[in-house]
Amino acid sequence: MNWKIEPIANAELERRIRARLDSLTKPPGSLGRLESLALQLGLVQRSEMPSIGRKAIAIFCADHGIVEEGVSPYPSAVTWQMVENFRAGGAAITVLCRHYGMEPIIVDMGVGQPTKNFAWEPAMTRAQAENAIETGMRRADAADLLGAGEMGIGNTTSAAALLSVFSGLDPHETAGRGTGLDEAGVARKADVIRRAIALHKCNPSDPLDVLAAMGGFEIAAIAGLILGAAERRRMVVVDGFISCAGALIARAIAPESMDYVVFSHRSAERGHRKMLEFLGAQPLLDLDMRLGEGTGAAIGMNLVEAAVKLYREMATFESAGVSNRE
Amino acid sequence: MNWKIEPIANAELERRIRARLDSLTKPPGSLGRLESLALQLGLVQRSEMPSIGRKAIAIFCADHGIVEEGVSPYPSAVTWQMVENFRAGGAAITVLCRHYGMEPIIVDMGVGQPTKNFAWEPAMTRAQAENAIETGMRRADAADLLGAGEMGIGNTTSAAALLSVFSGLDPHETAGRGTGLDEAGVARKADVIRRAIALHKCNPSDPLDVLAAMGGFEIAAIAGLILGAAERRRMVVVDGFISCAGALIARAIAPESMDYVVFSHRSAERGHRKMLEFLGAQPLLDLDMRLGEGTGAAIGMNLVEAAVKLYREMATFESAGVSNRE
Repeated sequence: MNWKIEPIANAELERRIRARLDSLTKPPGSLGRLESLALQLGLVQRSEMPSIGRKAIAIFCADHGIVEEGVSPYPSAVTWQMVENFRAGGAAITVLCRHYGMEPIIVDMGVGQPTKNFAWEPAMTRAQAENAIETGMRRADAADLLGAGEMGIGNTTSAAALLSVFSGLDPHETAGRGTGLDEAGVARKADVIRRAIALHKCNPSDPLDVLAAMGGFEIAAIAGLILGAAERRRMVVVDGFISCAGALIARAIAPESMDYVVFSHRSAERGHRKMLEFLGAQPLLDLDMRLGEGTGAAIGMNLVEAAVKLYREMATFESAGVSNRE
Repeated sequence: MNWKIEPIANAELERRIRARLDSLTKPPGSLGRLESLALQLGLVQRSEMPSIGRKAIAIFCADHGIVEEGVSPYPSAVTWQMVENFRAGGAAITVLCRHYGMEPIIVDMGVGQPTKNFAWEPAMTRAQAENAIETGMRRADAADLLGAGEMGIGNTTSAAALLSVFSGLDPHETAGRGTGLDEAGVARKADVIRRAIALHKCNPSDPLDVLAAMGGFEIAAIAGLILGAAERRRMVVVDGFISCAGALIARAIAPESMDYVVFSHRSAERGHRKMLEFLGAQPLLDLDMRLGEGTGAAIGMNLVEAAVKLYREMATFESAGVSNRE
């Protein structure tokens, strides 16, 4: 894997973008986070007049050997059934894509060909991890504004394990209900993760090793999408707990890639608050959602689009003949 | 003024809507607040299959005699200049209306014909207050889904005064920076409100008396829009601090009207958090915005629309052939 990612910081460009924001017909700063998004997109695109053409959400789908441990109330078969549902347009993310005019890109990362059960052996080989990352990277060509989504029965267990390894938090703080475990189920899930961490003895400074051990082909692909977006200077909006696990991997590989990421929402999944804190991320939304698929990312992408339209289309005090502060 | 507003509660309809929500291809409850919005809209429209046709945001514009007290860093002339900006499509709210496919309805409630300076005399007569409410009520015919927005230099002072009267909070807790006062300016604004409250000795159990004393023709109209929407069984999405002051009045007149209201966002204006607490409202968004005009309402209305599309268009486990929980 090879890439070159630059931080987005650019003091002169930032000054010009802020000057335009303050010239628009509104009190300075009064559009809050929407102004920050416009600034971030300008810096990402290296442009005083950023724009968004194509918008696409990559929905990476994969199965998980860890499901053998009883960590999900839904069977693995649901992953493929939901892929069919995505294709037919009946899933939440496809409804939102229609609503927002975004393209859903469904990427089969190994549905029906699960990772190994990481309670007993590494989820994947290092070569598989690299391949999955590269598959994700290539998807960064898909659009100007990218969203990261996923589907994979069992994948909250992988995401919680990855968060525990990188953050040092005990699995009882990172494991949650996922698609709907009861408290006893969550405790079993935390035990499974705790034993896996003891088994693999991962080195958090070797992110590919951690990824290969705890797996998730879709999580690897999301990390790749972020790295690929950053390399191409495109913004990528991530979804909830699973997508943020991909961000954890991307950050461990290339910290400067985080400049290109927007965190769309705080999921109701238990570990997500801790994950966002660990990433130092301030999500845009907190709507008590915990579905995944990219549903939070879709709403966040629409806010980015609103932000850039406000930035581009609002009149200035001068052009509209509006009196500025006395 | 005459109206008949019914509470939306309907146990049998709620049971059917919840059953449909749980039949959709997602873990139960995993769309969080979006599921609550779909349920609320169904109850508002008395329909198991709620729908949204026309969407409009009423932007009530008015001037304020209280500006004589130096409570705003912008001159009153800006109110009319912004009306022109709305008409030309260059204001934030008009950019958002284009983005979301909503109609902005600009209502001149007395721009250039300000209320009296309520530091010294009642802002308006009781008859004027009633007329302004009725003007707002008539606007509830405009669309299936309504938004409440406003423009009026000086109107955060009215809104803070109304909140202080109804809640009993001292003006230092309800007055904020508005369009951009410094801390000394905020302290002066709180003093102006404190003296006005002592002068008018309003009775919070007589909302028309409070409204007439502390004024705001646009605030009166927003109260009317809410009452009119509730009477016609339509949902109305309110914006920030000023719009919520309208909701305060509507609630004081007819508490059951609150069933029809969605609180879109928590504004960065200081008193808004207290106002939402006083109203017992959980806003959808917290994006550090404090512009008014209906900008938060527009984003909130789009979330309502997303919610109803998810509710109507998602496949069920049965229709999509997806396995449900084991």
